[in-house]
Amino acid sequence: MRTHRREALDLLFHFLGVIFRDGHRIFTKMAEDLSASASPISKPDYWIIADSRYVSLLHAIYILNGADRRWSFRSPGTAIGKSQKSVQMGVGHSSLSSSVDSLCITAFKPQPKTSALYNPSPQRQGPLFPSHKHPPFAGLKFATFNSGRVAGKMEIQKGIAALQKPIVDFHGIDEDLIQKMVYDALVWTSLHGLVVGDRNVQRSGKLPGVGMVHAPIALLPTLFPESHWKQACELAPIFNELVDRVSLDGKFLQQSLARTKKVDAFTSRLLDIHSKMLEMNKKEEIRLGLHRSDYMLDEKTKLLLQIELNTISSSFAGLGCLVTDLHRMLLNDYGANLGLDSGRIPGNTATLQFAEALAKAWTEYNNPRAVVMVVVQTEERNMYDQHWLCTLGITYNVRSIRKTLAEIDSECQLLPDGTLLVDGQTVAVVYFRAGYAPTDYPSESEWRARLLMEQSSAIKCPSISYHLAGTKKIQQELAKPNVLERFLENKEDIAKLRKCFAGLWSLVDSDITKKAIDEPELFVMKPQREGGGNNIYGDDVKETLLRLQKEGSEEDAAYILMQRIFPAVSPTFLIRDGICHKDHAISELGVYGAYLRNKEKVIMNDQCGYLMRTKVSSSNEGGVAAGFAVLDSIYLT
Amino acid sequence: MRTHRREALDLLFHFLGVIFRDGHRIFTKMAEDLSASASPISKPDYWIIADSRYVSLLHAIYILNGADRRWSFRSPGTAIGKSQKSVQMGVGHSSLSSSVDSLCITAFKPQPKTSALYNPSPQRQGPLFPSHKHPPFAGLKFATFNSGRVAGKMEIQKGIAALQKPIVDFHGIDEDLIQKMVYDALVWTSLHGLVVGDRNVQRSGKLPGVGMVHAPIALLPTLFPESHWKQACELAPIFNELVDRVSLDGKFLQQSLARTKKVDAFTSRLLDIHSKMLEMNKKEEIRLGLHRSDYMLDEKTKLLLQIELNTISSSFAGLGCLVTDLHRMLLNDYGANLGLDSGRIPGNTATLQFAEALAKAWTEYNNPRAVVMVVVQTEERNMYDQHWLCTLGITYNVRSIRKTLAEIDSECQLLPDGTLLVDGQTVAVVYFRAGYAPTDYPSESEWRARLLMEQSSAIKCPSISYHLAGTKKIQQELAKPNVLERFLENKEDIAKLRKCFAGLWSLVDSDITKKAIDEPELFVMKPQREGGGNNIYGDDVKETLLRLQKEGSEEDAAYILMQRIFPAVSPTFLIRDGICHKDHAISELGVYGAYLRNKEKVIMNDQCGYLMRTKVSSSNEGGVAAGFAVLDSIYLT
Repeated sequence: MRTHRREALDLLFHFLGVIFRDGHRIFTKMAEDLSASASPISKPDYWIIADSRYVSLLHAIYILNGADRRWSFRSPGTAIGKSQKSVQMGVGHSSLSSSVDSLCITAFKPQPKTSALYNPSPQRQGPLFPSHKHPPFAGLKFATFNSGRVAGKMEIQKGIAALQKPIVDFHGIDEDLIQKMVYDALVWTSLHGLVVGDRNVQRSGKLPGVGMVHAPIALLPTLFPESHWKQACELAPIFNELVDRVSLDGKFLQQSLARTKKVDAFTSRLLDIHSKMLEMNKKEEIRLGLHRSDYMLDEKTKLLLQIELNTISSSFAGLGCLVTDLHRMLLNDYGANLGLDSGRIPGNTATLQFAEALAKAWTEYNNPRAVVMVVVQTEERNMYDQHWLCTLGITYNVRSIRKTLAEIDSECQLLPDGTLLVDGQTVAVVYFRAGYAPTDYPSESEWRARLLMEQSSAIKCPSISYHLAGTKKIQQELAKPNVLERFLENKEDIAKLRKCFAGLWSLVDSDITKKAIDEPELFVMKPQREGGGNNIYGDDVKETLLRLQKEGSEEDAAYILMQRIFPAVSPTFLIRDGICHKDHAISELGVYGAYLRNKEKVIMNDQCGYLMRTKVSSSNEGGVAAGFAVLDSIYLT
Repeated sequence: MRTHRREALDLLFHFLGVIFRDGHRIFTKMAEDLSASASPISKPDYWIIADSRYVSLLHAIYILNGADRRWSFRSPGTAIGKSQKSVQMGVGHSSLSSSVDSLCITAFKPQPKTSALYNPSPQRQGPLFPSHKHPPFAGLKFATFNSGRVAGKMEIQKGIAALQKPIVDFHGIDEDLIQKMVYDALVWTSLHGLVVGDRNVQRSGKLPGVGMVHAPIALLPTLFPESHWKQACELAPIFNELVDRVSLDGKFLQQSLARTKKVDAFTSRLLDIHSKMLEMNKKEEIRLGLHRSDYMLDEKTKLLLQIELNTISSSFAGLGCLVTDLHRMLLNDYGANLGLDSGRIPGNTATLQFAEALAKAWTEYNNPRAVVMVVVQTEERNMYDQHWLCTLGITYNVRSIRKTLAEIDSECQLLPDGTLLVDGQTVAVVYFRAGYAPTDYPSESEWRARLLMEQSSAIKCPSISYHLAGTKKIQQELAKPNVLERFLENKEDIAKLRKCFAGLWSLVDSDITKKAIDEPELFVMKPQREGGGNNIYGDDVKETLLRLQKEGSEEDAAYILMQRIFPAVSPTFLIRDGICHKDHAISELGVYGAYLRNKEKVIMNDQCGYLMRTKVSSSNEGGVAAGFAVLDSIYLT
């Protein structure tokens, strides 16, 4: 049996070697070293940091390994969260949870003294981005690793070279090295589908496979404090629940948006559909939310503050994961030169988890022949982000079809029992990747389509209530005193949410309006529209507020005022159209959340990976599509 | 222990589920079914066809599974070749070789009666491409599966749906189905790096990540007889050896090419370098060949005939594998509608094996800091094919750098001991993806670079001798009576080679020249140049021959005459620039071979996957880049 186990282990490593075709280089060293060593303990120490998607494989290796060899699985970055399965082994200081994002796996000699852990090198200190004396270059500090989590004497005999070299100055990175990294990054994007449609190529938004260009990306991950990262992750399931609760309070939604309705035609149409559903007493028993909550880290207060909560068409789950993989690959290759360690980039399984949520919703609908219908725009240069999700859907045997709102109007049919039919197939889930902006509804046809779907028994992601619960006006209402308490019971959860709320006000608050006219640089005016690029900053805030006061119309209800957040500005390498730009940039962290319930049963309420968006600091908007912004990942400090 | 093993098995399946991100859907069913069944034999029968890259994983699963569950691994298509590791298990009729291309894995109840095999459905008959009465539509016939290999009563309880439905008429495939498949194919190419530079985008040949378009592809694999496929595979190691032997006979190369030298300036320069090496008495102790032998199946004679042997810059190993994966994916999804089974597409690991060969050569050079230098053209729209190989190189910890011949001339340095240096790094292997065509040498600079590399101790892939051994003139010389016997001893090998030789003649043969003038449609005139697009067909053969006779110059030495091969013409769907064309097409099968030896030790002599190229039948050339041709895979009949 022992021989068998060893053979299996060797074969698994052989297999791991093969995986690298797909770029998961991290395993190479392990595969080579361990396959080479015929005897279990002929080589003393190895360790490796692995993506969460390999947790199960590593787990299997441990089991295979049994008593022969000792392994230690360890989370390098984050503390081990809600542990689903914990295996005690080796020298008694490590545990494995299959829910952690990254792992450190260590094989070692069975002497208790010679153990290994994540923090191998005490000299690993000093900033990557040197902290300057004055803003805007203060940046995020590069902290030393926290080794306090692990007790006992620690030493490592083999590790990542990066950790034994001094960390280089960001400004001093060799130009040749940058060029090599940029080239490797560009190659990687092309081979791994980190692509978008090229706006310079006509058909690129209509047809896959033509006019592709790499997605705009940051060359290296952006430093982000681990504590704030954990905070953002913890918030995801709470926001998931909040959206669900708010969505059930039709009266709250209608009342809060009543004034907005008068001045914003788009919100008004959404509210009309919502009213019809209330009149019909339509119940959504299966509710699916795929959200992304966006945050910025305010440099002055060091607070993680929410920018907005997207409850419809949360994008970049697909490409965001790939950027994480890309950055890990680059740090595996060049980390030694930079003093950076790929294990500090949290794993990102947003695509997988979103696909899983869609598949689980489809399962709840309980019709094996039904399809997932993706509602798409007529032109979509970000289609590959969507295709990644749908490709994964196939894993679950879930077929998806893509339709525009106009196509849905002409091709979809609603049966008397509520079944939504498209091309003769039942629709189990409607997944909106369009329909969030007024421009998505150029005619009555699109509104008819939206209503048709809402009336059906298909699971809507999102339903009209979920959509409305994500509007800026509702965000502002929820920030008012005692409003969260209407929807949530858990005081700790409420406190956590409140802690991330920035100042949010309606324009009827004359004190705030006055203050915003006096100090417009401290505020952002946000209209009730999605998609980025519509916010008002600086002197325009003042001018708009004065104009609205003068006109005395109700147009003020179309806006909210928000505290302006000043994130740290850091020098960054941004790559767009094959060209690398060095510029000062700010970043916005989006954390994905998936929520699925069927009546009283909550099937899924998870945090699901993340998206960092980094933009040249002179631009005000967070949308990657809107300005010169790039997809990014984070490096925990 | 049993619990542990079961847990490990479940975890492996969980892992397999994750793999599907990369499109290897084939495991889904297995992962789902088996993970779901808690008890080892609660579900009786499953089977699955898997890619060779998963052999080791399946093997590991078997070992994990031990005595609890019985598994049968079976090759669906090809017979099991040179078995490296064979495991007998289950009901004693199956074996597993880790060298086979595809596998069928079966779990079954331990009753000998209820077994499973590859040929599950007797109704699986009839042609996909109906055989018409007249050429050019005779096509390749779609044979029923050969079940003779497996003895015993066979039945299947679970299988691929495809096998239980009638096979549709190719002409009758539903237009909607075609459109869906084309769309899915385009998405897949984009997400999986099956891309090339778009000739309409200026920078697309210079910079990765910009101006990408899907590679031209066939929508479905082309039918190919299994016997001819096996024949082509068997030839690969023999040709590998032949090239090596010929390369060592400097006199043979010089003499055979003496007349060509006088009229072909390019060959002349190559021969000059070769002469210099002979004068220097330069020995290449480590010799690496990455070849591709191209064949067509002559419709009249049913013979597999060699078109040419590429010993330099054999392209499409990277993209060809992806086309195989794409076609398997499409047949997994749509095979049921087409009556086609993805398991009949042989696995293709050309990329992996070529990368392995490069890495092994690098290992033989024995300098861990040395690099592989890829010699590239200044513009290369097929760069992603090359990047796939180099990306894989990283798996083996082998770094590669890309240089043009001009860059090599200005940046490379030859040390007195023969070490080739580039950017201060030692070059272990020079891998040519340029240098095969006269246009690659616009000035003396490029020739200097070629000579410099040849003089060095770096391993050249190919060396000048290997390069010359692949010329058309040498192909024609080798086809002469008793020439093969100069290089090979094994009579069977010689007979196998000779069987695939088409008629090949020099123009000094006046009988043949006369015949070619009388019946030019039976011949092709091939100049001593690579790259496709230069061959002479039809009336042009006659005119050129008459002109050469009239002029009486020695220009005739620049050509060889070759028997024209008439492959079957089949209706095919070809996709280019996002558009699917239905046309009549002919196909050319290329089989890759890798050869590595160090002095007397042959380290590698393998067949390495394949490339099918399919082109609209009106075009005469085989080059995908040259005309309207597409990358394709094969479906064994």
